[in-house]
Amino acid sequence: MSALDWIAVDWGTSHLRVWGIAGDAVIRAAQSDQGMGRLSAPEFEGALLALVSDWLPAGKLTQIICAGMVGSRQGWVEAPYRAVPCTPLAETFVRAPTQDPRLQVYVIPGLKQPRPADVMRGEEVQIAGHLARNPGWDGVICLPGTHSKWAHLSAGEVVSFQTFLTGESFALLSQHSVLRHSLSGWEEAGFAEGLAQGLERPERLLARLFTLRAEGLLDGLSPALARARLSGLLIGAEIASAKPYWLGQQVAVLGEGALARLYVQALETLSVPVRAHPADDTTLAGLKLARARLLQQENLCAN
Amino acid sequence: MSALDWIAVDWGTSHLRVWGIAGDAVIRAAQSDQGMGRLSAPEFEGALLALVSDWLPAGKLTQIICAGMVGSRQGWVEAPYRAVPCTPLAETFVRAPTQDPRLQVYVIPGLKQPRPADVMRGEEVQIAGHLARNPGWDGVICLPGTHSKWAHLSAGEVVSFQTFLTGESFALLSQHSVLRHSLSGWEEAGFAEGLAQGLERPERLLARLFTLRAEGLLDGLSPALARARLSGLLIGAEIASAKPYWLGQQVAVLGEGALARLYVQALETLSVPVRAHPADDTTLAGLKLARARLLQQENLCAN
Repeated sequence: MSALDWIAVDWGTSHLRVWGIAGDAVIRAAQSDQGMGRLSAPEFEGALLALVSDWLPAGKLTQIICAGMVGSRQGWVEAPYRAVPCTPLAETFVRAPTQDPRLQVYVIPGLKQPRPADVMRGEEVQIAGHLARNPGWDGVICLPGTHSKWAHLSAGEVVSFQTFLTGESFALLSQHSVLRHSLSGWEEAGFAEGLAQGLERPERLLARLFTLRAEGLLDGLSPALARARLSGLLIGAEIASAKPYWLGQQVAVLGEGALARLYVQALETLSVPVRAHPADDTTLAGLKLARARLLQQENLCAN
Repeated sequence: MSALDWIAVDWGTSHLRVWGIAGDAVIRAAQSDQGMGRLSAPEFEGALLALVSDWLPAGKLTQIICAGMVGSRQGWVEAPYRAVPCTPLAETFVRAPTQDPRLQVYVIPGLKQPRPADVMRGEEVQIAGHLARNPGWDGVICLPGTHSKWAHLSAGEVVSFQTFLTGESFALLSQHSVLRHSLSGWEEAGFAEGLAQGLERPERLLARLFTLRAEGLLDGLSPALARARLSGLLIGAEIASAKPYWLGQQVAVLGEGALARLYVQALETLSVPVRAHPADDTTLAGLKLARARLLQQENLCAN
């Protein structure tokens, strides 16, 4: 096995994922549930070492480059937001305080938008990764998830972005609302139906939600159809509301398998040119770009 | 104290309220948290007796007339829905099985609408009560709450109705979502602001939700302004979507103090002729009408 060069880290609210990199190759990977939400500032170093301590060569510094909520005010160290319009990836990163002499930890700052107020932490690295893999790409990035994000890219900069509470709403409604007993499983036809309703009349969302329950009571709507329809309703409402983003643009969906496919399917019904890209790949590509920046600066300083 | 004639019962998912009536006057009242959601069918009689057993004269039957979820499939006895268009109050009620020889329990059926599928249990009694107090009233009834309802009344009949998951969405978002740390208290100006946004762009709801969080992070939006704005966003989106109901109609809001006032305020910004009526009064008026029907039928049978 090649010698470890550096470590890439994706550190969100509820997860921690690490990749050991040698040259351009991932030679190790690990993850835990020690997300930012569970840790106070002094606990981050221990949570990281629990995964990577064995990887670290003794007697030298290893660079660790972190993206995500780890840079929030409640994170390891606050990495202040950069304001759009700007390139997705910063030129410089924020050093996190460490005890272990083998660690040199950098945190990548997120992006903010003053009006309408919006923030991201982590997605900007995926966007940078997408651009690194597709130089000169202009268009719109859609990042499905708990808090879905849409970002407009032009000439290498994030021009504007918008976050939607779609995934979290789906989780709340399917786990905690009166609908929870009427939803389980997944029957594809329900998604297309909900999607059409959500796209056509996004303003009717609060009413359509109760209709799911009423159809269960009156028409025997199956829990699997109802759950897929709920997903379609929410994603349809999001995409209808995000129209200023995708209209007349090409869209890259950066996300995981099933959910990314639903967004691609939805956009295709609107004849939007769309392609999905695995989120892990773009995250890693963005972290590699950050590492390249660090090396460049070290070389500059050494010269 | 006059002798008890009968008992009126409002039995919802999470509450049980009873009123002892003599002539036209309420002489006793009690309530508990033994809602339908906590009880299996054989437990309803005991939950009722826990509140009213001491009120019941020995050696004779006392009529108990119940409205609400007590008549659902998971209730004391199923009282099948009546389909709109129809009068809000049924001509006949469903007897619930009882052990105590002093009890004669009736359950009032709810209403259903085939397309778009919708159901109500309990609100139809409030609507009947409103009509009893305002004979010949035509217009639209708005019943704010966990599941807000709008009903179109014409010539004494419920023509159509629509339920919105507004109150439950507010509870879920303020207690369980990422917004929960950004929301507490109530500052009135936030409501008006959210209402304007919700009325103008109801389709943007999923985006506006995240904006609340981002403004907290970037602009120091206060939790009291944010919570009131969330309420305004949701009620605004509901009212915008309910436009086919209130447009060109007079609206009667049947509901409790603070929430009813918010709906009145919202409708007044749209110049809709609107008046609020306390929900308890209309519930009791509807239950009294049901009691009058029962007595009429007994007299018919006696003649």
